[in-house]
Amino acid sequence: MQLARVIGTVVATRKDAELEGVKLLLIRACDLDGRADGPALVAVDAVGAGFDEVVLYAAGSSARLTAVTQNRPVDAVIMAVVDQVECEGRRRFTKDV
Amino acid sequence: MQLARVIGTVVATRKDAELEGVKLLLIRACDLDGRADGPALVAVDAVGAGFDEVVLYAAGSSARLTAVTQNRPVDAVIMAVVDQVECEGRRRFTKDV
Amino acid sequence: MQLARVIGTVVATRKDAELEGVKLLLIRACDLDGRADGPALVAVDAVGAGFDEVVLYAAGSSARLTAVTQNRPVDAVIMAVVDQVECEGRRRFTKDV
Amino acid sequence: MQLARVIGTVVATRKDAELEGVKLLLIRACDLDGRADGPALVAVDAVGAGFDEVVLYAAGSSARLTAVTQNRPVDAVIMAVVDQVECEGRRRFTKDV
Amino acid sequence: MQLARVIGTVVATRKDAELEGVKLLLIRACDLDGRADGPALVAVDAVGAGFDEVVLYAAGSSARLTAVTQNRPVDAVIMAVVDQVECEGRRRFTKDV
Repeated sequence: MQLARVIGTVVATRKDAELEGVKLLLIRACDLDGRADGPALVAVDAVGAGFDEVVLYAAGSSARLTAVTQNRPVDAVIMAVVDQVECEGRRRFTKDV
Repeated sequence: MQLARVIGTVVATRKDAELEGVKLLLIRACDLDGRADGPALVAVDAVGAGFDEVVLYAAGSSARLTAVTQNRPVDAVIMAVVDQVECEGRRRFTKDV
Repeated sequence: MQLARVIGTVVATRKDAELEGVKLLLIRACDLDGRADGPALVAVDAVGAGFDEVVLYAAGSSARLTAVTQNRPVDAVIMAVVDQVECEGRRRFTKDV
Repeated sequence: MQLARVIGTVVATRKDAELEGVKLLLIRACDLDGRADGPALVAVDAVGAGFDEVVLYAAGSSARLTAVTQNRPVDAVIMAVVDQVECEGRRRFTKDV
Repeated sequence: MQLARVIGTVVATRKDAELEGVKLLLIRACDLDGRADGPALVAVDAVGAGFDEVVLYAAGSSARLTAVTQNRPVDAVIMAVVDQVECEGRRRFTKDV
């Protein structure tokens, strides 16, 4: 899984029936401090992630293993909102509350 | 999933029986503004995407999860035509109507 | 899927039983004009592709979805011989007949 | 599979139900001497790996094949703690005991 | 599939039960002449490959399709020992006998 930040949304009206009702978020891979520094991609939101939140996403067939994404033609899913990243004993990221 | 622009077509007569009847489109990954700037690849069209449209494609086993691609030996599918991309509160791409 | 050119063959006598009887071709990813310019890889031939032909290959689990590759430990399959590549209204590649 | 070093942890409270109870570790791909020199990623711990240990992780659908990760939306799993890496007759890494 | 050379071994005592009894080899992707020039990775040996042999490996879910690797959490398998690589009519690699 990779850390990413939610940076936007994608809207698509004409789509495969199996995509109906899923929310497509634009995310950008981020470093351990939560700084978005990677490539952008589109992932289905399975946890109600909000704009600018740091999330965890899974890619490939595993993206279909949440309740929201089962049997859908999607290859990336946001399945957790990150509260904290700790690296080598140091807190690198903490979610604002 | 990734954003891409439809840039052309691929025709293949001699092919595996499971590829009969699918439309093979040439696409190029694009940035948030819809500018094709990535590598080209070939994807099956599951939504009737047209030339120059910005689309969303899924790769890997998920490419087989549309009605059109079930059980076929394909690893990329266009499963949505993109209407709008919004990033950090700004409209980056809007489909011409 | 990706375009590739058939550049050679790989022979392996000692192999998993599920690889018996498959033809292993050496291919190199190519550009839209059919010029081999990418990395070389080994793919199972599911369509009787010949030396120097431009082909389409699928990777990952989808490589097991042809009649030839079912249930075999292979992650790349040539499932079509390309006749024509058209990009932005221009014919970029046409198979010699 | 790849060698990696455990460098930290990720905590996520809001998450897909199928992620409940799994431990999310931050790892960094490492070289044959165990020096972390690659990109960081998040993997589920299936073997009780400790901080700074050199581990082996599997990616993709295979990440769901441990007892801990079955049917979960995860694409990377730590499924072994490495004791020894030998390359070209030379011991490159040995776990401290 | 990719060509690789066997360069060593990895030993892991603490591991997922499904990894018991499999041999973990260290391999390095190689070019058409058999020169190891790529990144190192760890693959399960399904054919009794020996040190320094040039082999073929499959990645992803296909790595679980040999008799040795079925249902195991592994994402790379050596499923053939390469005897010969021929490219553009020229023998590039021949196994020593």
